[in-house]
Amino acid sequence: MSRWKRYLPAGGQDYLMDECYNKLLVQDKLRKLFYLSGYDEVETSLLEYMDVFTGVKASIEQEQMIKLFDSDGRILVLRPDITMSIARIAATKLRTLTLPLRISYIGNVYRNQKTQSGKQSEIAQAGIELLGVSEPEADAEVIATAVMSLIDLNLKEFQIDIGQVEFFKGMIAQAEMGEEWEEEIRTLIDQKNMLELELTLKESKISDQLKNIIYDLPKLYGDSDMLKKAAKMSSNIKCTSAIENIREVYSILKDFGFAKYLTFDLGMVQSFNFYTGIIFRGITSELGYPICGGGRYDRLVNEFGYDIPATGFAIGMKRILMVLERQKNLYNIPNIDVLVAYEKNSRQKAYLMMNELRSDGFRAEAFILSNQETDYYAYAIRKNIPKVIYFNSNGIQKITHINEEVCK
Amino acid sequence: MSRWKRYLPAGGQDYLMDECYNKLLVQDKLRKLFYLSGYDEVETSLLEYMDVFTGVKASIEQEQMIKLFDSDGRILVLRPDITMSIARIAATKLRTLTLPLRISYIGNVYRNQKTQSGKQSEIAQAGIELLGVSEPEADAEVIATAVMSLIDLNLKEFQIDIGQVEFFKGMIAQAEMGEEWEEEIRTLIDQKNMLELELTLKESKISDQLKNIIYDLPKLYGDSDMLKKAAKMSSNIKCTSAIENIREVYSILKDFGFAKYLTFDLGMVQSFNFYTGIIFRGITSELGYPICGGGRYDRLVNEFGYDIPATGFAIGMKRILMVLERQKNLYNIPNIDVLVAYEKNSRQKAYLMMNELRSDGFRAEAFILSNQETDYYAYAIRKNIPKVIYFNSNGIQKITHINEEVCK
Repeated sequence: MSRWKRYLPAGGQDYLMDECYNKLLVQDKLRKLFYLSGYDEVETSLLEYMDVFTGVKASIEQEQMIKLFDSDGRILVLRPDITMSIARIAATKLRTLTLPLRISYIGNVYRNQKTQSGKQSEIAQAGIELLGVSEPEADAEVIATAVMSLIDLNLKEFQIDIGQVEFFKGMIAQAEMGEEWEEEIRTLIDQKNMLELELTLKESKISDQLKNIIYDLPKLYGDSDMLKKAAKMSSNIKCTSAIENIREVYSILKDFGFAKYLTFDLGMVQSFNFYTGIIFRGITSELGYPICGGGRYDRLVNEFGYDIPATGFAIGMKRILMVLERQKNLYNIPNIDVLVAYEKNSRQKAYLMMNELRSDGFRAEAFILSNQETDYYAYAIRKNIPKVIYFNSNGIQKITHINEEVCK
Repeated sequence: MSRWKRYLPAGGQDYLMDECYNKLLVQDKLRKLFYLSGYDEVETSLLEYMDVFTGVKASIEQEQMIKLFDSDGRILVLRPDITMSIARIAATKLRTLTLPLRISYIGNVYRNQKTQSGKQSEIAQAGIELLGVSEPEADAEVIATAVMSLIDLNLKEFQIDIGQVEFFKGMIAQAEMGEEWEEEIRTLIDQKNMLELELTLKESKISDQLKNIIYDLPKLYGDSDMLKKAAKMSSNIKCTSAIENIREVYSILKDFGFAKYLTFDLGMVQSFNFYTGIIFRGITSELGYPICGGGRYDRLVNEFGYDIPATGFAIGMKRILMVLERQKNLYNIPNIDVLVAYEKNSRQKAYLMMNELRSDGFRAEAFILSNQETDYYAYAIRKNIPKVIYFNSNGIQKITHINEEVCK
């Protein structure tokens, strides 16, 4: 036998019966919510040219992409992101449609990434994109849909953290230290590496007041009262507008009844180049990393030649399943309802019966007599099937309810 | 802009709104049928070691696989087949389960293949595998499920061609010409290359009687009467058993009421190494190639170290969609049912209304006032939305039914 025939590569994912059943339940719920909220689903190609994901601003690191060559020598990747593929589609195939465009998707993305639990390369996602409007109503709609998703999925407890990348950008631009320095500061704040941040700030030739403000950014976390404090700190129009924008989105979400789910975090500075306004992530105490995330990305679609603003979010399927598991909120795949056994003469009757049962929504299994299985009754007990219908050779049916006690 | 940023690689597939909607409808119907028939769905990893698909007997040509290296230098492939992945899973993760195992899947496979319409690399499939029984009842169940699939999908007209690879193997083994010659003959018959077949047979040192029988193999096609003729030609036990096996499967399917869909073809000799008994394919006059196919593969799972027989089938999603399109049997994605517009003061009421509409199964879209869209009424007309609910700033709602005439 070849060396790796029985193995799955690190980062590969098999969803077996029960897990697949729960994944499909989650997908169905999200699909329904997105559809009823006005989003049309698309399925983007898994194989894409690498160029789709590289660009001037919003791009994914080459190292993170799983690459291969096509027969003409071009570099293809397994899509590392679906939002960018949707931007490609919007710019090339959907330009004649009335804006806003509401698009949803469910699918896998692929990334090379070293994590503690190995190389996670296959990541199942579901998400929406709202393209063509820059209004805060659009960001609020996306966040509200994220909240509704988590509610519909029966998550017992979760929180949505909202940030605004323009606040940080406005602060840092005041320092006039150049992009490289800004990126260094951003990385330190993202990593919450306060020691290194303090040192880097100390070495910079910027005012002490600004140093203190930047150093305190990671502490700008909390409920809506924090926004007042941040507004006071804002000394330029960019920061002020960012806070104003968060407040507007907040006031809409408050009207929607979602205030209790919201916290604010102006030190949330990840994916700095991709996002251009509101960003958010969903968190739960069951998991050390976000279960969903998103935000505004007004520059991306223009990289494909269509200058429209956009906002959206994605939810991690595996993470949701992990949370549901920890909350003891997963299902077992339902058992077979009825086993239908028959003598050859009664095959026709038995098949009609099975079809009827299935039309009524019952899982009906045909008993296949074989060397391994000669006794349908014993088989039903072994497989926990509660009901057996047996047709004898005269076409007469006998119904047996398997005693639940026997099954255990 | 990078050179290929706006392009999709040849063979890649974007399913846009309407097509995705139809694909999901097809998937849902198949998923429901498989589930009610007792099949449990799994989702296998897209990335697999190449070793899974190479082996002594049932293997896929290296050229057909899309390959990449993992960071340890091992060769990975995008799964070129799901049946083999399920065989891997059955042999490594499902050995403790009671047989038979009934497993279903919906997913993409990836192959390098030069076709007239370019390199088709992404192929969406749905299918079932019935593992652990060698009885003809199992083959009949799989074929019956294929028939039910095509009925449920509203295909107006289709036919199931049934063959048996052992008949050909029995015939050809009589010639005692060795495997290489057998493979040559098989290929010629598969290609229906009668001229070359005649020449190759003429050159062989086998009896004229056998030459004639092999030459006539591609003509062994027709309804169940043809099987009688084939039975007469069978001069060894292998051929006789093969015909007996087809007849048994046929008699079961006749009892199921499916005789009218069935034809027989003993010259069907594709995938010779993979299949070990009954094979079949679904055809329709709308398409020049099969829409589904399957058969018995008793040797495959043992290549992963678990010696159990198996039978199954897969359906090609894209092909089904093509047939449905040609039969004018596709749907448009349903329109938005209600547009909800509101003044800021009434946001809360409007959101409650939208949630209520969605709970009742209506697609409700929130109107977002923007630079591009200032008039909800004009927007509704443009987007063909039949009903508008507007909340003024006093929270009073006004319902407008857009005249269908206006919409056209």
